[in-house]
Amino acid sequence: MIGLCGWDTVARAERGRRPAAGAAEPGGTAIFLRNYWYVAAWSGEVGRAPLQRWLLNEPVVLWRRGDGTPCALADRCPHRGAPLSNGRVVGDDIVCGYHGLGFCGDGSCTQVPGIDDVPAGLSTRHYPVAERWGWIFLWMGDPALADEAAIPDYHWNDDPGWAGRGETLPVAVNYTLVRDNLLDLSHAHFVHQKTLATDAVVDAPVKTEFDGESLRVIRDMRGIEPSPFFKRLCGFNGAVDHRQEVTFTPAANIVISVRVRSTENPDHAVENRVLNAMTPETDRSTHYFWSLQRDTQLDDAALTDAMFTANRDTFFEDVAVIEAQQKMLDTAPEPAQPVRWHIDKGVDRAQRWVAKLLREEAAQTGRAAAAG
Amino acid sequence: MIGLCGWDTVARAERGRRPAAGAAEPGGTAIFLRNYWYVAAWSGEVGRAPLQRWLLNEPVVLWRRGDGTPCALADRCPHRGAPLSNGRVVGDDIVCGYHGLGFCGDGSCTQVPGIDDVPAGLSTRHYPVAERWGWIFLWMGDPALADEAAIPDYHWNDDPGWAGRGETLPVAVNYTLVRDNLLDLSHAHFVHQKTLATDAVVDAPVKTEFDGESLRVIRDMRGIEPSPFFKRLCGFNGAVDHRQEVTFTPAANIVISVRVRSTENPDHAVENRVLNAMTPETDRSTHYFWSLQRDTQLDDAALTDAMFTANRDTFFEDVAVIEAQQKMLDTAPEPAQPVRWHIDKGVDRAQRWVAKLLREEAAQTGRAAAAG
Amino acid sequence: MIGLCGWDTVARAERGRRPAAGAAEPGGTAIFLRNYWYVAAWSGEVGRAPLQRWLLNEPVVLWRRGDGTPCALADRCPHRGAPLSNGRVVGDDIVCGYHGLGFCGDGSCTQVPGIDDVPAGLSTRHYPVAERWGWIFLWMGDPALADEAAIPDYHWNDDPGWAGRGETLPVAVNYTLVRDNLLDLSHAHFVHQKTLATDAVVDAPVKTEFDGESLRVIRDMRGIEPSPFFKRLCGFNGAVDHRQEVTFTPAANIVISVRVRSTENPDHAVENRVLNAMTPETDRSTHYFWSLQRDTQLDDAALTDAMFTANRDTFFEDVAVIEAQQKMLDTAPEPAQPVRWHIDKGVDRAQRWVAKLLREEAAQTGRAAAAG
Ligand code: FES
Ligand code: FES
Ligand code: FES
Repeated sequence: MIGLCGWDTVARAERGRRPAAGAAEPGGTAIFLRNYWYVAAWSGEVGRAPLQRWLLNEPVVLWRRGDGTPCALADRCPHRGAPLSNGRVVGDDIVCGYHGLGFCGDGSCTQVPGIDDVPAGLSTRHYPVAERWGWIFLWMGDPALADEAAIPDYHWNDDPGWAGRGETLPVAVNYTLVRDNLLDLSHAHFVHQKTLATDAVVDAPVKTEFDGESLRVIRDMRGIEPSPFFKRLCGFNGAVDHRQEVTFTPAANIVISVRVRSTENPDHAVENRVLNAMTPETDRSTHYFWSLQRDTQLDDAALTDAMFTANRDTFFEDVAVIEAQQKMLDTAPEPAQPVRWHIDKGVDRAQRWVAKLLREEAAQTGRAAAAG
Repeated sequence: MIGLCGWDTVARAERGRRPAAGAAEPGGTAIFLRNYWYVAAWSGEVGRAPLQRWLLNEPVVLWRRGDGTPCALADRCPHRGAPLSNGRVVGDDIVCGYHGLGFCGDGSCTQVPGIDDVPAGLSTRHYPVAERWGWIFLWMGDPALADEAAIPDYHWNDDPGWAGRGETLPVAVNYTLVRDNLLDLSHAHFVHQKTLATDAVVDAPVKTEFDGESLRVIRDMRGIEPSPFFKRLCGFNGAVDHRQEVTFTPAANIVISVRVRSTENPDHAVENRVLNAMTPETDRSTHYFWSLQRDTQLDDAALTDAMFTANRDTFFEDVAVIEAQQKMLDTAPEPAQPVRWHIDKGVDRAQRWVAKLLREEAAQTGRAAAAG
Repeated sequence: MIGLCGWDTVARAERGRRPAAGAAEPGGTAIFLRNYWYVAAWSGEVGRAPLQRWLLNEPVVLWRRGDGTPCALADRCPHRGAPLSNGRVVGDDIVCGYHGLGFCGDGSCTQVPGIDDVPAGLSTRHYPVAERWGWIFLWMGDPALADEAAIPDYHWNDDPGWAGRGETLPVAVNYTLVRDNLLDLSHAHFVHQKTLATDAVVDAPVKTEFDGESLRVIRDMRGIEPSPFFKRLCGFNGAVDHRQEVTFTPAANIVISVRVRSTENPDHAVENRVLNAMTPETDRSTHYFWSLQRDTQLDDAALTDAMFTANRDTFFEDVAVIEAQQKMLDTAPEPAQPVRWHIDKGVDRAQRWVAKLLREEAAQTGRAAAAG
């Protein structure tokens, strides 16, 4: 007799788990938004051999079918729980390395050793997958709701009008600490004294724009001294106008546009896009996918490397700060009345928004459960 | 004033401990069966110096008296909890290395420093011990119930009619995952492709026999191609009849009999016995005592080594699989309706049986507590 | 808008934390006494660069102002929790390394980046500090109750009439296990066989004196053989009178006076003072500050080193025992009726006393909360 697969990892992983300090949004009840596309890997990381990756506290196995399309299943075998990623890819399917159950990329069971006719309906959990702009996106929630139109826009990552390079940084923090770091760039003055520091960013008024689809934090700095990064890499010497637009879209995407223009010579201008996909691995670790793209000197490979290295060094400084911050938060929750001032506008707005989305998702899941 | 020893480690260790995923038998309430003999050590491991060993989540100290008989006490000193195993054996007794309380092997206190007459009744917990067939067995439950007639039969381990060798493998899993691995040998086809794999074992019908004393899982394979192990080490070339009998007795004993006979030359036959004592160290680690014995070519030491090495390599493959399985189970309990088919017959029968025994033991303990 | 700092780390750290086995005094409800001075550091450890130190499960940052006076704040920044100790000392103040909030040593906020007038009342938690006898003391409870008259007397540490040397030992145990080790020196016979062992210490009657301010455990041994320590380092050969006075004052201070006098030549006499400040780092680790001072041969630096080294080797033996003890206690609480005899008098008296003080402090805190 063959039972249907009953792994219900999403709900179980959440249930009974005390949300880690700093993990849950204020007012939220679940840890992670689920009905969203998350970056799971760079295209080149997924091939014919199975890849195990933990995403949102869940083990996932990714591989490519014979035709090259990527697919993803829950990594726990529905038989006795061995990781499918320890098995082998045979044709389009993955075969468990323990007792040989086989599954295709949509989760259907295709092979039961010693049994000729695989019972209909036997399946395991699959994750909808989309490959775009050099990244592989996974839909971590209800597959029926997956909509490729909702994939966050990271087209700069392989747009021929842009040049640049990126990588994945493993960061031992809840993803929210990475997000909040990027939503308040005033920290550059203190954390990045040798690269991005300008007095102006602390004093500049912060504007936040929210249209229900995305949250934008804008700092417009006119006639300021360029930061060491733009002096050294982009040749700015005199005063510049420097505009930062940090655009956040749920669940965990931030695109930063930085436009710098010489006030003396308005033709000397550059725009950079820093792409940031902060995918939770667990509630205490994050796959931080980032890429820095520019719209000028596209063929200058040395400049690509120099900008990549400078940005990476900057991110290492951030990682040191937020991993130390996480250790403090782990031993005491945030205070009821923490100190807040104008630099916090963007972060606070994002936190309230995600908390609301978490509540809505929880309510939706509750209704679905009641209806089902 | 001297109080009596009140350490009640069994009950305390269980109480308030959330059974780890995969640890408790379905329907069971306690983690481990207690009123059973467990293999604690190889004879050669226990000598005049104290040996600390964790068994069923409890620290135990083992040593030999002057006359060579082994004995075992709870390793927590009933004074202030220092491990007795950090002390010294003096004569027949063990003396705590902190403040010098002395105990003999039945748990009676024999020395209180600075006090001439040790108060009667002062004692600590002892474990009944039996040494047999090269192994030292401990009774982990109520000493009043210990009965040497109940020691599981591993006589092949030092029977002059058999030859072989064994060792202890530390495995970072709950003992049930080792047991279930052995109760379903169909995994050989997928896990042991280079040594034990035969297609036949997957397809062969599984027979289970249960007589209330032991559970037997039998696969009778007629006229099959011998596995690489029997080809290489026992010289089988043509078709063979291959009979596997896996016999499980609680708490955690499995004896595997493998009989292989050439169909062309019925005189060419061999029987192997694989002895497996899977003693829980903690709920996430197991002392896996195993030994491979054969009934032919008893004086061939090179064959002993070759078979030992081949079997050990095979077990290393199992350890890799079940330790990965344990990591998956640690992050999600088994599903309510997992996939099950004919290969699972033996495992499921054993799980139900042990669950029943755990319930019975819990009820018995409850009655004893109420009566006491 | 700027909110007041609401970190309430003391209460939060306790709340919801299961007291570790062996951590809480019997009958006590909190883990650590708070309204007491604790040794936090040697004077030389604190300078102009911030020092992070965990004390009583709390992260603290220590530094010296421009005038050299030490100060201490909660190490969690009241903005987003980054450790202030990752920031920089600027003038008298510490500036957070993330977004630049500045604080002076009394906890007042002195700088909010981008804001001209720091709002009055904005502050973070500070710890009263006193520097004395080469050590820096912190008051870990309500600052309003801090009274320098209550600093425990360790004047021997830099008294010109005494000579000696000390250090900090990190010990992976709850501080109570260090304290109880020192309150019962009969363990020397078993733990320190090569240095401090004398049969006499086990057999000697134990006298305890308690005056409500301190607890004294006294052993007076007349005409005994000197221990190896006093033979080798202080030249005693024949019989000696040896008096030990172990004086405990809460929260975690023990001063041991050891007086040894030759019975033949009463002019040959020496007094040692062993100073022991056992400051909890967490509930499983202790900063054990100790120092050994003598009243003879003050200028003999080689003797200072020899005595320091001998004492340190002795303490290493204790650390091995009590860390093993802690591991046992971690897996089972102390028994309801443990074995106790005359050597336990001092320890038991201290445990009951501290348990009473913990209850009183809890009641006092409750009343203060109700009144406030
Ligand atoms: S665990 Fe995957 S087939 Fe058995
Ligand atoms: S802890 Fe064993 S005698 Fe004290
Ligand atoms: S965390 Fe310290 S100023 Fe922001």
